[in-house]
Amino acid sequence: MATVSFLLPFITAVLLLTPSSSLTSQPSDAFPSNTPMRFLGKHYTESNLSANNTRYLINTEHWVGPSRFGPIFLYCGNEDDIELFAVNTGFVWDIAPHFGAMILFPEHRYYGESMPFGSRGEAYRNATTLSYLTAEQALADFALLITDLKKNLSAEGCPVVLFGGSYGGMLAAWMRLKYPHIAVGALASSAPILQFEDIVPPETFYNIVSNSFKRESSSCFDTIKKSWNALTSEVQKEDGLRQLSKTFRFCRELKSVQDLTDWLDSAYSYLAMVNYPYPANFIMPLPAHPVKEVCRKIDGSPPDSSILERIFNGVSVFYNYTGGVDCFQLDDDPHGIDGWDWQACTEIVMPMGSDRNTSMFPAYDWDYSAFREGCKRDFQVTPRPRWITTEFGGHGIEHALKFFGSNIIFSNGLLDPWSGGSVLKNISETIVALVTEEGAHHIDLRASTMEDPDWLVEQRATEVKLIQGWLDNYMKNMKAAFNI
Amino acid sequence: MATVSFLLPFITAVLLLTPSSSLTSQPSDAFPSNTPMRFLGKHYTESNLSANNTRYLINTEHWVGPSRFGPIFLYCGNEDDIELFAVNTGFVWDIAPHFGAMILFPEHRYYGESMPFGSRGEAYRNATTLSYLTAEQALADFALLITDLKKNLSAEGCPVVLFGGSYGGMLAAWMRLKYPHIAVGALASSAPILQFEDIVPPETFYNIVSNSFKRESSSCFDTIKKSWNALTSEVQKEDGLRQLSKTFRFCRELKSVQDLTDWLDSAYSYLAMVNYPYPANFIMPLPAHPVKEVCRKIDGSPPDSSILERIFNGVSVFYNYTGGVDCFQLDDDPHGIDGWDWQACTEIVMPMGSDRNTSMFPAYDWDYSAFREGCKRDFQVTPRPRWITTEFGGHGIEHALKFFGSNIIFSNGLLDPWSGGSVLKNISETIVALVTEEGAHHIDLRASTMEDPDWLVEQRATEVKLIQGWLDNYMKNMKAAFNI
Repeated sequence: MATVSFLLPFITAVLLLTPSSSLTSQPSDAFPSNTPMRFLGKHYTESNLSANNTRYLINTEHWVGPSRFGPIFLYCGNEDDIELFAVNTGFVWDIAPHFGAMILFPEHRYYGESMPFGSRGEAYRNATTLSYLTAEQALADFALLITDLKKNLSAEGCPVVLFGGSYGGMLAAWMRLKYPHIAVGALASSAPILQFEDIVPPETFYNIVSNSFKRESSSCFDTIKKSWNALTSEVQKEDGLRQLSKTFRFCRELKSVQDLTDWLDSAYSYLAMVNYPYPANFIMPLPAHPVKEVCRKIDGSPPDSSILERIFNGVSVFYNYTGGVDCFQLDDDPHGIDGWDWQACTEIVMPMGSDRNTSMFPAYDWDYSAFREGCKRDFQVTPRPRWITTEFGGHGIEHALKFFGSNIIFSNGLLDPWSGGSVLKNISETIVALVTEEGAHHIDLRASTMEDPDWLVEQRATEVKLIQGWLDNYMKNMKAAFNI
Repeated sequence: MATVSFLLPFITAVLLLTPSSSLTSQPSDAFPSNTPMRFLGKHYTESNLSANNTRYLINTEHWVGPSRFGPIFLYCGNEDDIELFAVNTGFVWDIAPHFGAMILFPEHRYYGESMPFGSRGEAYRNATTLSYLTAEQALADFALLITDLKKNLSAEGCPVVLFGGSYGGMLAAWMRLKYPHIAVGALASSAPILQFEDIVPPETFYNIVSNSFKRESSSCFDTIKKSWNALTSEVQKEDGLRQLSKTFRFCRELKSVQDLTDWLDSAYSYLAMVNYPYPANFIMPLPAHPVKEVCRKIDGSPPDSSILERIFNGVSVFYNYTGGVDCFQLDDDPHGIDGWDWQACTEIVMPMGSDRNTSMFPAYDWDYSAFREGCKRDFQVTPRPRWITTEFGGHGIEHALKFFGSNIIFSNGLLDPWSGGSVLKNISETIVALVTEEGAHHIDLRASTMEDPDWLVEQRATEVKLIQGWLDNYMKNMKAAFNI
């Protein structure tokens, strides 16, 4: 079973953002907008990026500055180009003016343009050069950046609030845990910090994906569940792979049925993640309620359609919603080194399995040994499956955090397959879980739209209120400490 | 000015302890004592130490085991052989029976026998092999050890209490901050976590040393303060170094007056640190109130004694209390790589200066540039003077910890020169400062003796009460969580 990444890597950011600067440069006070958009124009300077630097996007348009303790909203960049996250985290941009906040999007090292050793080629050369690609190093990068930046701006007194979605949400929660002196609180959206070892069953993720389809239509669920055997039968026929390639309109003939299985697996998984109630273009341009749409196509195919024809009609919603694709390309270089795969093979070891009864995917028991051998083969590295819980906690984390820690929001939508590995219950008065029945993968972090359902509007209002509480408390304590 | 290490490195542990095992070995349930002493006999097995392992000493004699949630008392090993700390941390051994606690003394990597790369020679080869000698790595080692050990002993439910003195105390406090899921609380004794950057004045340390002498006798203080010029005059005379070597009875002729200055500086600094109210043998065999003794010798020398003769009589209390030394050896290999010097040149950068008015030492303004150049010369490394406060906090740490963190005792004696860089005020109800007027360097961690003054007995009783409170709370929560 393929490792499920949080994000597909083949996205091109379409909106452009405020400039990034190298870690050592002095940011200017404000970057005036030269477009009528909420997002600022492109002031990006390539030459500022020298070896080992973390790129970051900064916006000070609404920042009220150090004298008024203007807060700094920091999104913890995750496993892709930081511009992608800046564009898809409209919530931070929406609320920054209200708070008079600076916006900061630092990029995670080894992604986007933040390459140690001077280039992607050098950084990804081998297990030695990749060994600095870890969550802890990313957190340390953020800590260094914010400390330096605050010093440069004489903004040491300004409170920092962390944001993050998915792996970025994990980083936000972990950063609040590990660097409470740097950030006053964290909104960790769809952050599966418990998807490790035996804390939640390995089947959790695919069960939730499956349930997302089943709740739309049990016949849709059944069709998908049956389709894997249909694939196996088909490929065993003479000329099977060629026929399958034709049925699914691949530009080139499939090399194995596994490639097709992975392609379908990805589609269903991402569909469940981005099952938003309005049209969106996060991973792919998709209609509102895309899982419902896929099932409408599967169920609504002409009565004489075969299972595989139905499947093809369904996943075309994901891979070809705009209708512009003539034939589908599989990833051309499946053996190219991907940063997330490296992280999954070292510390972010998330057991994944598929239950033979409750899942619509092929049954699969999590097999750590096989996983480990794959990592040795691909990266010449042995995973450390227990490291994350040792470093950040996991087992019984609610007991640890109840008496140590504060100011974290774990927000989750139950449609999101990652919600099963996240924190879904309040831990204390200040470490709270916001759970929405109809939410998908960090939908709360997206920009507000006219189509937002009430529950989403309310969820964001609660988040704003909690963040306001953290900042009010911080100000109260600052004033008390300095007799302001 | 010489870097002041927390401990002189030329100590031989005289008492022997419970066996160490390698990280991966399964410790046996109990190690029966084969001596009548409180410390257990030597069961140490060299062959268990393979490359990259952390040595640890373990004692389960009084441990009530997993079924009764027997606590685990973990001393965070610092910059020397762990046996030295085990021998000099009698408090943990004294109280373990009362708590039914296991005792664990893991060794800090790169010290004692815990050498990565297989040997000390390999580990200390160059800046690359030394790059894993950091506080963060030591904390991670402790976290891995305790997690593995608990798993092996099915003791996951057993609470861990951290102890540490000096740098070990810093590690204990930092570990509680960074790994609250692993330890329920920390007793950080004489832990100067604020001795960084500009948080306390660089002159703090030497001012406290100087005050320790001044409070015994102002003429003693004056004699020492005058002695540096006397040295300078002496060395400028013909044959000056040879005469000085003779006056101070060095076995070999001094190579520079700086060597003598450092030798004296060390003596005064360590005397202030171990200024205990009873005879002890921590750094050197010393009488009770050793600073008072030194000043008695300086002031009480024959009336016609020169300043330098008085100084020699004084420091002989430190270097030759037992009278067994015929002549003094200076460190034979001052350019050998010392682990603590490496740490001081990378992340543990503690600014040190000497005030021309309040200090009895030669005036010296902290000069970071000169320090940095020394590090480049000695280790080919550039220090990161702001890293520790970025990683662990420092500036305004009381505000950060007031609302995030719990269960830390910062204990300090005001005679201890390191107390000036520690936490001397309560931060919250559960992050408390225990300050004693007459205490020296982590005296509370030493074994109880018949000569203990009342304030020390009371201090330790308070510590026991606070630790009991952490454990009671932990048990209460465990019972509530599991409906025991």
